[in-house]
Amino acid sequence: MPHIGLREELPGMRALQTFRPETAGPLNALANVLLHAAGTLSAGERELIGTVVSAKNDCHYCQSIHGAVAAKHLGGEALVLDAKEDFETAPLSEKMKALLAIAGQVQEGGKHVTPEAVARAKSAGATDLDIHDTVLIAAAFCMFNRYVDGLGTWAPKDEQFYRDRGEYLAQNGYSAGPPPANP
Amino acid sequence: MPHIGLREELPGMRALQTFRPETAGPLNALANVLLHAAGTLSAGERELIGTVVSAKNDCHYCQSIHGAVAAKHLGGEALVLDAKEDFETAPLSEKMKALLAIAGQVQEGGKHVTPEAVARAKSAGATDLDIHDTVLIAAAFCMFNRYVDGLGTWAPKDEQFYRDRGEYLAQNGYSAGPPPANP
Repeated sequence: MPHIGLREELPGMRALQTFRPETAGPLNALANVLLHAAGTLSAGERELIGTVVSAKNDCHYCQSIHGAVAAKHLGGEALVLDAKEDFETAPLSEKMKALLAIAGQVQEGGKHVTPEAVARAKSAGATDLDIHDTVLIAAAFCMFNRYVDGLGTWAPKDEQFYRDRGEYLAQNGYSAGPPPANP
Repeated sequence: MPHIGLREELPGMRALQTFRPETAGPLNALANVLLHAAGTLSAGERELIGTVVSAKNDCHYCQSIHGAVAAKHLGGEALVLDAKEDFETAPLSEKMKALLAIAGQVQEGGKHVTPEAVARAKSAGATDLDIHDTVLIAAAFCMFNRYVDGLGTWAPKDEQFYRDRGEYLAQNGYSAGPPPANP
């Protein structure tokens, strides 16, 4: 049950963004530039980083939404599930494994990132911009996850909700406002 | 030493914002609406929440910058030091103590926020908007702290740097671009 008076029919982030539109604007703009706008990592790779961090933070809403966006971009749900379970053995490039390892360290805390993890990513071909975006995506999901769960929002149980929402976000990004259908 | 190629003369967040201006825009807009724009909590109260969370995350740069902004707004450095050491015994209102307790739970994780902590804040006069902003400020600093430390930025040792920067930010907020003096 939400800790504050949110619109009952709206789940997760959507209830929060309706409650406080002044903060929704910058949060959506941040999500859009980090996850959807052109970048050196693909949108699917960036969504996967957010999904794996959200799973580590045990945030059902965020890992389900962004897992669905990642699956849409990457062409299947199995890869997302594999990456959440153990990205080191998932069918991912060595560069993505190294970036996900850095993201996992960021989830534990900023000071947990090791020179060895950064060196591994660089030797696998990661650029400074790839590493920057990985750290900021992981840090941003440590915010989003705490925001969604810290105010006690609810998450739909129906997986089709996330598939539909994931398809919408994969196409439209995060600055286009809420989708036409509710919730 | 920074994990990526940042401008060596710039510390903390400023090096990162120069490296990636596309993300600096939304991050500054978020900081401004959360900390500086009109709100139901005073700017000093909101900066104090960010400072206490940054101290819990052991982020030297953020707790020093925002501690200096809070001190400027609240009229002294002693209160900020007291709040970082133990806000329950610091000379703060019961409402602020209750909100700082919620912020501390958010720092541990979104699911750590208890109905009891929220009820304590409400019985001390906190509104839903106060609680919302407290949770999002605490969550946002869990991002800022991880961003600053996760990429290995450096922090000035000279306390006067933070006092000067704190005075500038207390007056101008976070959307006015970098201050005229470097670093």
